[in-house]
Amino acid sequence: MLRKEFDHVILLAHGSPDPLWKKPFEALYNNVVQTYGEGNVSLAYMELTTPSLEDSVAALSADVHQLAVLPLFLAVGRHLRQDVPSQITALQRDDLHITLLPPIGDDVIVKEAMQTVVANHLGKL
Amino acid sequence: MLRKEFDHVILLAHGSPDPLWKKPFEALYNNVVQTYGEGNVSLAYMELTTPSLEDSVAALSADVHQLAVLPLFLAVGRHLRQDVPSQITALQRDDLHITLLPPIGDDVIVKEAMQTVVANHLGKL
Repeated sequence: MLRKEFDHVILLAHGSPDPLWKKPFEALYNNVVQTYGEGNVSLAYMELTTPSLEDSVAALSADVHQLAVLPLFLAVGRHLRQDVPSQITALQRDDLHITLLPPIGDDVIVKEAMQTVVANHLGKL
Repeated sequence: MLRKEFDHVILLAHGSPDPLWKKPFEALYNNVVQTYGEGNVSLAYMELTTPSLEDSVAALSADVHQLAVLPLFLAVGRHLRQDVPSQITALQRDDLHITLLPPIGDDVIVKEAMQTVVANHLGKL
């Protein structure tokens, strides 16, 4: 578990042509905002849905200097190995350092939660 | 949280052209198998990666009658609203009842885990 503090975290979901698809990501964002305030977290989409990562970075306040991008993905494929790093490289500035975090599904807390859900469905817990 | 017991659970991930992409799903599967045995859980992919859902259903032992399909997805889009239900309808048999579960990301246990991960990155926990 990474304990570094960032000024701001952008939650980055994949995006979908289906308008209902983004509901759970909006719910996660809204829950975080309710608990911690809306100043230091944003929700963006890689493709097919707005706001984009570029939109969200452009909307940051000038006092954000350490930005993290947290992919709301379960696994790393071409998008997180190539597309998103390229986007982030283009967005880096002298006064804005952007860190691409591992995807949320790679965190041991989420991994253990998924194992628990599978076990529940198997009737083992 | 659903507590119904099934004879077998197929974990269904999306699939990707990137061979490294499937690692976390294989890790989840392997951890579940280590804990609960390999008889009652399988790992399948919707597209681009094998085994398919059809492959995995064909490989079930004859004493499986209540099968659950647990999508390893964070959100419901066209795949889970249309494609996978159609696949499952075609696979139902008199002696095999297949239940499509909500995606793993819709379970409150996973939702809470994701909120915790975001909070950790914000330095709020």
